[in-house]
Amino acid sequence: MAGRVEIVEVGPRDGLQNEKRAIPVTEKVALVDLLSRAGFSRIECASFVSPKWVPQMAGSAEVLAGIKRAEGVRYAALTPNMRGYEDALAAGADEIAVFASASEGFSKANVNATIAESIERFAPILKAARHIDLPVRGYISCVTDCPYDGHVEPGQVAAVADKLFAMGCYEISLGDTIGQGTPDSVAKMLLAVKNVVPVSRLAGHFHDTAGRAIANIDVSLALGLRVFDAAVGGLGGCPYAPGAKGNVATEAVAAHLERLGYHTGLDLALVNEAAAMAKAMRTG
Amino acid sequence: MAGRVEIVEVGPRDGLQNEKRAIPVTEKVALVDLLSRAGFSRIECASFVSPKWVPQMAGSAEVLAGIKRAEGVRYAALTPNMRGYEDALAAGADEIAVFASASEGFSKANVNATIAESIERFAPILKAARHIDLPVRGYISCVTDCPYDGHVEPGQVAAVADKLFAMGCYEISLGDTIGQGTPDSVAKMLLAVKNVVPVSRLAGHFHDTAGRAIANIDVSLALGLRVFDAAVGGLGGCPYAPGAKGNVATEAVAAHLERLGYHTGLDLALVNEAAAMAKAMRTG
Repeated sequence: MAGRVEIVEVGPRDGLQNEKRAIPVTEKVALVDLLSRAGFSRIECASFVSPKWVPQMAGSAEVLAGIKRAEGVRYAALTPNMRGYEDALAAGADEIAVFASASEGFSKANVNATIAESIERFAPILKAARHIDLPVRGYISCVTDCPYDGHVEPGQVAAVADKLFAMGCYEISLGDTIGQGTPDSVAKMLLAVKNVVPVSRLAGHFHDTAGRAIANIDVSLALGLRVFDAAVGGLGGCPYAPGAKGNVATEAVAAHLERLGYHTGLDLALVNEAAAMAKAMRTG
Repeated sequence: MAGRVEIVEVGPRDGLQNEKRAIPVTEKVALVDLLSRAGFSRIECASFVSPKWVPQMAGSAEVLAGIKRAEGVRYAALTPNMRGYEDALAAGADEIAVFASASEGFSKANVNATIAESIERFAPILKAARHIDLPVRGYISCVTDCPYDGHVEPGQVAAVADKLFAMGCYEISLGDTIGQGTPDSVAKMLLAVKNVVPVSRLAGHFHDTAGRAIANIDVSLALGLRVFDAAVGGLGGCPYAPGAKGNVATEAVAAHLERLGYHTGLDLALVNEAAAMAKAMRTG
């Protein structure tokens, strides 16, 4: 076994967003700068949703302004709507991410819209981004289980993935938002999604709530996925998903992948340093 | 990742059966004796089908009589019918194996019977074996692809597995007889079979014809399988399946599993020695 596997670092956004302590901008900048040196190609570090909703992300523009941009690294921002998109652009985001749910219950709770409505909202973002060649990543949440609706049908995930891909997302990140997926349910979901989106355009985004994130990464690897989201220190979760906590830890995924013989391009010592920094930020 | 994974050595039967050279009994005995020392718990070394059909197996009784039986090792024999079963018992087989196809085309070519007819033939074997507590393993061939019928439906494999398991087979070995399975097709098949047979009672039997055996083992591992068939030296194939050659090599599987952190209980040096011996037997 060999080959390259990329870890997309989402700790500064998905991770810190969900910690209780309000992290000062300077600390976020220090974390992103350390991550930039660790060898990531993509770091999600900002979120231009309404600061009212997610207080942690209020300083997103300041973070993007404060970081030392490393060559070859794309700094990404989550944008729920055109307002967020414009703010992200103004702040200098290199790529943006839009998000939809595979379950109606979660969509309602998270963005107060049906899945179809939430996707409609992205349309202008994707159109605008296409005009300036700005890469847009699509997140799908609750790809196996939803805290409100329970089991999520693989066909439903495939339908949302198909739409996001057709609209121009260059990659679809499949999120097990509440960490309840199993290798079986993840495999079923992936087999359905692979029917509509090339596997080279898929990423796995697993939370370790039930301790199965690595097992779910393994089955995803076996089915051809080569991109995984993770957060240094295993920070985060989702404020809108009861019981959802803990992105799978970047340092654990990186060590696992290297042990399997994959190349991540990461400096594991720096990744571990970043993990320690992230964990310290948790408590302040 | 950790835990135990068992390799069932099928080289002396599935492997040598399909080599062109008629292997003398003494050579087979030497190979089995070496394998016994290498740490396998199960070695398939005999086949009581009509010697007319598979000349290589004519000496099966002599092999079972000639080997040095190691403690804790079960020596298995393939038996297509009651006559074979009785011969296997008389020769001192510790366990027997019955075989069915998941595809009608292969069943017709291999045993000149429909799948249903072939399963009916096993009924008396399984009944007789139950009375004397003799373990019976069930093989299913063509679990993803058939040289005659093409793609094989996962539901068809599950139906055959369900029947064999209900009839008393303690384990079902799922065979990609022509080595055309992919991680996707293997995953689909396994997800269907796992609905009817506990994963702890399933084994994977992959041929490396297309170079995908290890990838197929990986996806099987990710979905919970912990038993795999392999043949030292990568010998064999199937005389009734055009283009089918090469069981996955035991030494390659063992090295791969150990690298992944699994314990096989095998002495890899002895396995390699057996592989060299098996390869030499090929050419005489």
